[in-house]
Amino acid sequence: MIRPLLVLRLLTMPCLWMGLVQLVFGELSFMLFKDNVASNFAMPASITLGVSLVLLIAFKKYQLPSVSTREAMLFASLTWLAVGVLGAIPIVTIAHVTFTDGVFESISALTTTGATVLSGLDEMPRTFLMYRQFLQWMGGLGVVIFVVAILPMLNIGGMRLLKAETPGPIKDEKLSPRVASTTHYLWLVYLTITALCAICYYLAGMSVFDAIGHSFSTVSTGGFSTHDASMGYFHSSLLLWICNVFMLLGATNFALHYRVYLAKSIKLYWRDEEMKAFLMIVFVISCLLAFYLYQKGANATFSGAFTESFFHVISFITSTGFAATDLSAWPAVTAVVLIFVGYIGGCAGSTAGGNKVIRNIISLKSVGLELKRLVHPNGVFAMKFQGRTIGADVRHSVMGFMCLAALTTMVFTVLLMTTGLSFVAALSATAACLNVLGPGFAELGSSFAPLTDTGTWMMSFAMILGRLEYFTVLVLFFPVLWRH
Amino acid sequence: MIRPLLVLRLLTMPCLWMGLVQLVFGELSFMLFKDNVASNFAMPASITLGVSLVLLIAFKKYQLPSVSTREAMLFASLTWLAVGVLGAIPIVTIAHVTFTDGVFESISALTTTGATVLSGLDEMPRTFLMYRQFLQWMGGLGVVIFVVAILPMLNIGGMRLLKAETPGPIKDEKLSPRVASTTHYLWLVYLTITALCAICYYLAGMSVFDAIGHSFSTVSTGGFSTHDASMGYFHSSLLLWICNVFMLLGATNFALHYRVYLAKSIKLYWRDEEMKAFLMIVFVISCLLAFYLYQKGANATFSGAFTESFFHVISFITSTGFAATDLSAWPAVTAVVLIFVGYIGGCAGSTAGGNKVIRNIISLKSVGLELKRLVHPNGVFAMKFQGRTIGADVRHSVMGFMCLAALTTMVFTVLLMTTGLSFVAALSATAACLNVLGPGFAELGSSFAPLTDTGTWMMSFAMILGRLEYFTVLVLFFPVLWRH
Ligand SMILES: [K+]
Ligand SMILES: [K+]
Repeated sequence: MIRPLLVLRLLTMPCLWMGLVQLVFGELSFMLFKDNVASNFAMPASITLGVSLVLLIAFKKYQLPSVSTREAMLFASLTWLAVGVLGAIPIVTIAHVTFTDGVFESISALTTTGATVLSGLDEMPRTFLMYRQFLQWMGGLGVVIFVVAILPMLNIGGMRLLKAETPGPIKDEKLSPRVASTTHYLWLVYLTITALCAICYYLAGMSVFDAIGHSFSTVSTGGFSTHDASMGYFHSSLLLWICNVFMLLGATNFALHYRVYLAKSIKLYWRDEEMKAFLMIVFVISCLLAFYLYQKGANATFSGAFTESFFHVISFITSTGFAATDLSAWPAVTAVVLIFVGYIGGCAGSTAGGNKVIRNIISLKSVGLELKRLVHPNGVFAMKFQGRTIGADVRHSVMGFMCLAALTTMVFTVLLMTTGLSFVAALSATAACLNVLGPGFAELGSSFAPLTDTGTWMMSFAMILGRLEYFTVLVLFFPVLWRH
Repeated sequence: MIRPLLVLRLLTMPCLWMGLVQLVFGELSFMLFKDNVASNFAMPASITLGVSLVLLIAFKKYQLPSVSTREAMLFASLTWLAVGVLGAIPIVTIAHVTFTDGVFESISALTTTGATVLSGLDEMPRTFLMYRQFLQWMGGLGVVIFVVAILPMLNIGGMRLLKAETPGPIKDEKLSPRVASTTHYLWLVYLTITALCAICYYLAGMSVFDAIGHSFSTVSTGGFSTHDASMGYFHSSLLLWICNVFMLLGATNFALHYRVYLAKSIKLYWRDEEMKAFLMIVFVISCLLAFYLYQKGANATFSGAFTESFFHVISFITSTGFAATDLSAWPAVTAVVLIFVGYIGGCAGSTAGGNKVIRNIISLKSVGLELKRLVHPNGVFAMKFQGRTIGADVRHSVMGFMCLAALTTMVFTVLLMTTGLSFVAALSATAACLNVLGPGFAELGSSFAPLTDTGTWMMSFAMILGRLEYFTVLVLFFPVLWRH
């Protein structure tokens, strides 16, 4: 059973938060950047804050500790939608885009997708640019809390696996106290990494504004930039390698970061089966791509091909979506490889999208086990992950997730094509949104502006669907499942 | 353990058979068609027959009943390769193509793929044209025996499911007696349906030559034609609808055909869960496509759109690959839908390729069960198919198969692109070969001739891989699995 008023009461919290953020950005515009957009932030902020406070007081009798898992799923889906709409208001009024495009841009920021309908970023008000970057950072934090605190409990797509991995409070079965206690340490880890990233960017030559702005979209694996040319604007290999490190850190399980911090041992990263596989996949694919690019003459020097390969593979596998060069000038196969790499994804429990490395490992092990069973029909084989035996339920969830990702990709690609896009544009946009990756190709190579309104709404939905790991959202569309 | 000489002994049988077939076609050329290609068939036939007979006598001490499942898998893979090479010889000498292209064409015929490197078919010797058609029919029969008699025993991709469905002898665990007894009734069913198809084609206006030739490639869901324009050559809606019926019959589980025959009740088709789902999928997708085509003005009349939609959806879902119109003149999305539809495939135990309807059903049910489990975390749910409970092992096999199909598609698409193809051409060729479907798009829209030699060999391998349901072939590439 769903209690709508309780869900509404829960929704006031992220809305209040969005109101506060916009208020701060109004203040920043007025006091610091002096770019005359203060009212674009302050106006919607005051309305949001007012309405949210009234609702909060009206519904204060609804106690949080009693939230059920179904209500949590509805709340998660509605949060991204509601905050997306609220966050869109300054975008609509400052960048002069339609409501449809504004909501798309806002949801793209909050889901850390980083697909944009805007161009001419370099001329936009600085408050507005920083606001976009900050939305990604905030969205990334929300995602981390969702994937570390809520997903393992629901066991969406086999994520109960991670439960044994996560620190103390996570094993608690009650939703709210758990979210509260987990949020505390996740927030600290997230903030620390972001601060380190900003400092490194600054020391490597970015302005304070760009360093902070890009640290927001790097650690959240969001991929928004304050420049149309993205990371290519800076023409610095050093910055690309710094970016590589922090994209990887953002795509690492945040519970693992916390364990590394507690144990004061960096070796734990390598001892984690998912993280180890992740780094090896990145290394192998990047090297193959570097050799291919160099051999095809897409890069003049091997070190250039090496740097660009690592940067783009990491950017796509972590679902960040930064670019450092004009990808359309590369051989067509590289774009396809990068799109496919986006489906691998980062580690579970991180800000990264895609299917997650852990699910790829379990799927491959599952296929391997089938091959083994064929050769030894009477053998009994158990699947191991990180030393523990993986049960049939986890395998079912994981494989179901993979099939759903493939099916959803096909459905959205066909639907987008009926709005008039080419196959490559439709497939790349679908992959970019479902994997919260960002960059499109072909007609959508420079921005998502060419999408029709219908297409834009589809992609806004796809981003929320992918961000919340499909099941969380889909379950809401089958009321028949809710019956006992 | 593999006994190479036993496998060689087994291989003499299909080779002998191929020799006999070529001998008959040499005779046909000399006596009936008088098209001066008799020696092109008689020469390789005599060599093949001679060598095979010598080997057969030399290895007669190897007894067939003792064949192990591993040897059966190796035998199945090598059969398609060996017979493919032998079948290629007349193609190379008559159509004047390279050895690479000849083997591709031959494997394409025998795996019932129907992808071709040839053009100008209408001017080719009639013996040669009928030979190509007959190879498909023979390949189709081989496939039916493989999928009904061998696959369920190996439980490749969850096919143990079908065991309870198949008539008496199939439940036997010994390989050879089972293949022998099963072959008998499969052969009768296959021959009956083909004869009916040829008669219907003839009555609807085809020449005797075309009626027999097209019945071979319809019931085997092969898709070769004696005309470059494929079924479009005849300009007859009636023929398209007859073709629809027999493509569907070819894509039906042949064990089900036999049960229908035994029970003398056509209702059994509808009572079969897989068949029912198959027909409903065909109906729904065809209707949607018909409406879309009519609305987009691709067809002037609705009845024209209706006929063409059903024909092409059935042609692609059954992996036949006949065309009745220039698909490149249709909206781009239709080609994509047809490629995706090819992945659904026909029923298990038929000549059709693709992932098979049964695996789609089980995957969807698996995803549905996951959604249900999310809503009712403490519920216990069992999966039912055709009234029986489906165990975890079948689900693992099925989902493993689906993941493997997706992964293989990505790998071959990327590899083909490195040979210089566009994304659409590479993806469509991969889908056409893995699903033993046939038609390519973009550069490969009229034939597979533009492929490089490397690309052609890749696709020859892909056809065998897809035809033998991935696992049978892949298992041979991991010797490490063979250790105890
Ligand atoms: K992103
Ligand atoms: K075919």
